[in-house]
Amino acid sequence: MTASERFVERMHRATSEAATRGIDALLVAPSPDLAYLCGYGPMPLERLTLLVLRPGSDPVMVVPELERPLAAASPAGSTLDLVPWSDGADPYAAAAGFVPAEGVVAASDRMWASHLLGLQAERPAARFTPGGPVIARLRSVKDEDELAALRRAGRAADETFRQICQLPFQGRREEEVAADLARLLVENGHHTADFTIVASGPNSASPHHEPGGRTILPRDAVVLDFGGELAGYFSDTSRTVVVGEPPEGFAETYDLVREAQDAGVQAVRPGVPAGEVDRAARSVIEAAGQGDRFIHRTGHGIGLEVHEPPYLVAGDETPLEVGTTFSVEPGIYLEGRFGVRIEDIVAVGPDGADRLNRSTRELQTVS
Amino acid sequence: MTASERFVERMHRATSEAATRGIDALLVAPSPDLAYLCGYGPMPLERLTLLVLRPGSDPVMVVPELERPLAAASPAGSTLDLVPWSDGADPYAAAAGFVPAEGVVAASDRMWASHLLGLQAERPAARFTPGGPVIARLRSVKDEDELAALRRAGRAADETFRQICQLPFQGRREEEVAADLARLLVENGHHTADFTIVASGPNSASPHHEPGGRTILPRDAVVLDFGGELAGYFSDTSRTVVVGEPPEGFAETYDLVREAQDAGVQAVRPGVPAGEVDRAARSVIEAAGQGDRFIHRTGHGIGLEVHEPPYLVAGDETPLEVGTTFSVEPGIYLEGRFGVRIEDIVAVGPDGADRLNRSTRELQTVS
Repeated sequence: MTASERFVERMHRATSEAATRGIDALLVAPSPDLAYLCGYGPMPLERLTLLVLRPGSDPVMVVPELERPLAAASPAGSTLDLVPWSDGADPYAAAAGFVPAEGVVAASDRMWASHLLGLQAERPAARFTPGGPVIARLRSVKDEDELAALRRAGRAADETFRQICQLPFQGRREEEVAADLARLLVENGHHTADFTIVASGPNSASPHHEPGGRTILPRDAVVLDFGGELAGYFSDTSRTVVVGEPPEGFAETYDLVREAQDAGVQAVRPGVPAGEVDRAARSVIEAAGQGDRFIHRTGHGIGLEVHEPPYLVAGDETPLEVGTTFSVEPGIYLEGRFGVRIEDIVAVGPDGADRLNRSTRELQTVS
Repeated sequence: MTASERFVERMHRATSEAATRGIDALLVAPSPDLAYLCGYGPMPLERLTLLVLRPGSDPVMVVPELERPLAAASPAGSTLDLVPWSDGADPYAAAAGFVPAEGVVAASDRMWASHLLGLQAERPAARFTPGGPVIARLRSVKDEDELAALRRAGRAADETFRQICQLPFQGRREEEVAADLARLLVENGHHTADFTIVASGPNSASPHHEPGGRTILPRDAVVLDFGGELAGYFSDTSRTVVVGEPPEGFAETYDLVREAQDAGVQAVRPGVPAGEVDRAARSVIEAAGQGDRFIHRTGHGIGLEVHEPPYLVAGDETPLEVGTTFSVEPGIYLEGRFGVRIEDIVAVGPDGADRLNRSTRELQTVS
C-alpha cells in the first residue's frame, strides 16, 4: 500500500464511522488527527485549515492560499479537493459551503475554539458534537508499522532509564537531571525529547511536577517520568528511584505500587473494558488502605500523541482491542513526604498485554 | 510590582475589558493567553484546566487534581480560587458552576473544541463568543519588559542572519541550511528555534515551504524565514538571498519588495488602522502590476506567540497603539521561478515604527 493509499483508506474508514454514528460532516483541524487521516501536518494557526469528510462525498480540504502548494504536495494532497481562501476573505464562509445547514457536525478535539465558534456562527442550526470518538475508534488500534515505531520508542526510553541510573543524582538540581534525560532520549534515537519530569523528595508527591532548582538530597525518592517522539510516535515511561537508603516507609509503598502496576497489566485482555484495568490496579492500593492517595487514572492511550484515547479510568466501558497501546501507571502520593509511580506502555495482544517497556521494576538505588 | 501583582493586575484588566463588552464570563484555557493573564503555563491536554474571569467575582481556576500543587505554586496561584476535579469526574459539570446559565460566555481562542463542546453542553442557553478580542486588546500593547525581550530576540535573529550568510549554500540541501539556522538561533541566545524556512529556487515561490531534500543550486533565490523564543517572546525575520548571480528578473522583484516593505514600515503611526499598513505595502506592488502575486497579508502581531493580533490585513480597522509589535513582510511569488520576502518586526513608537530587526535589506549574495 502506498502512503497515499493508506491515507485514502483511513479517510474512507473515518467517513464510514461518521456515517454509522449519524454524523453528516466530520471537520478535522491541524492536529495528530489530521496527520493520521491524510498525512498532512501543518502547525495549528489562526488561519483556518480544515479537512471535511462527508458520507457520500469526496474529501475536501479548505486551506489558506499561501499553504496551498504544501497541502497539494502532501501524501494525500492529489486525492483531496483543495479549496483555498485568501487573507482578508472569510474562511468560515468558505468552509460553510461544505457543512450541512441543519445536520450533525463533528469537530475534531483539538480544533481551536476560535475556529469552532466561527463555523458555528455560519451554521447556527447545525448540531455540533465532539469528533474525538469517531477518530479515536480508528487511531487507538495500531497497525504493524505503528506498533514497530512504538516498540522502538519504548526500547529507546528503556535504555535512557538504564543510563540515567548510572549518573549521579545527589547534589545536583532536578533540572540538571532532566537535561540529562532529554539528552539521553535523543542519543537513544528519539527525534525530540518532549517531557522529562524529575520530582525529588517531597516534590515527588506532585504527579506533574516541573523539575526546578531543588537540589537532590540523600534518602530522596525521585520520580522520573519521561518520553519523546520517534518516527512520529511517542514513548512514555516512569520509574521511581532512591538516592542511597530509602526514606521511612518508602519500601512498602514501592512494593504496593509495583504490585498494583502488575495487576493492571495482568488485567489487559481483548474485550476487557478500559475501566477494568483501572479497577485491577486501584483495588490493590485500596485494599492496603491507600486508595485516596492514588489521585489519578491508571493510564492513557499513546501513539501520535502522548495522551490519546482510550483512557484507563473508572467507568470507561470501551472494550480493549488487539493493537491498542496505552500506559499502565498507578502511583501513590504522600504530601510532604514522597511519591511513587511506575509506568509502562503495553500493547493489547491476543492473549494479554505485551509490555513495550521492559526496564527493571526492581527498586533502583542511585548515587 | 511583584510577578504576582502584575498577573493580578492583568486579570483585573481583562475582567474589566470583558465587562465593557457585555461578557459575563471569560473562560481561558492553557495557552499563551493563560500564561499572560496568570503566569501559569501547563500543556494543553485532554484534562480540563480553565481560568474563569467574571465581572464582580474573584478569579477561579478549575484544575485537574493531580496538577493542583503546580497551579497553587504558580505566580498568581495564591490569589486564585482553585477548584480541583479528579479523574473520572465530569470537569465540565465542575466548571459550569462558574458559568452563567444564560449569559454571554467568551472562550479563549486556543481552547480545544472538545472542551468548548463539553462546556456548551452544560450551558446550552448561554451565548458563546470568541474571547480572543478581549485578551488581544491587552496583549497587543507590550510593556517595557516585553519590549526588551522582543528587542533581544530581534537582535539574536539579526546576528543569526549575518552568520548564515557566511556559510555555504550551494550544493547543500535546504534541510542542512535549516539545521544551521536552528543552531545559530540558539547559539545567539534563543531558548528554542521554532521555525526555519529555507525555500530555494522554485520552492521559494511557496511562502510556507518546509525545507526538504532539494540541493541548492547556483543562481537560486533562497527565502530564509526563521525565529525562536527568547525569555518567552518570539523573533521572526525573513530575508531573501541569492546564490551567486541572481536569476532572470530577480533584481527588479527584489527592489519592488524592498520598496513595499519600506512603505509598510513608513505607514506605521499611532492611531493608523492596521489595514492601512497592508494598503501601503500592497499599493507599491499593485502599482507595478504584481498585485496578484502578493498572496498573503502584510503582517501579524508577535509576542508570546509568533502569530497573534493585530493582523495587518485589508479591512482591519484596529488602530495601532504605542507599544504594539508586529511583522511587516510583503512578498512576491512567481510560481515555478522564485519568490522574494523581506520581513522585520517593528514596534509602534510615538513618532512611527521602531524596527526591532536591523539586518541589512541590501541584497546579499551567498556562496
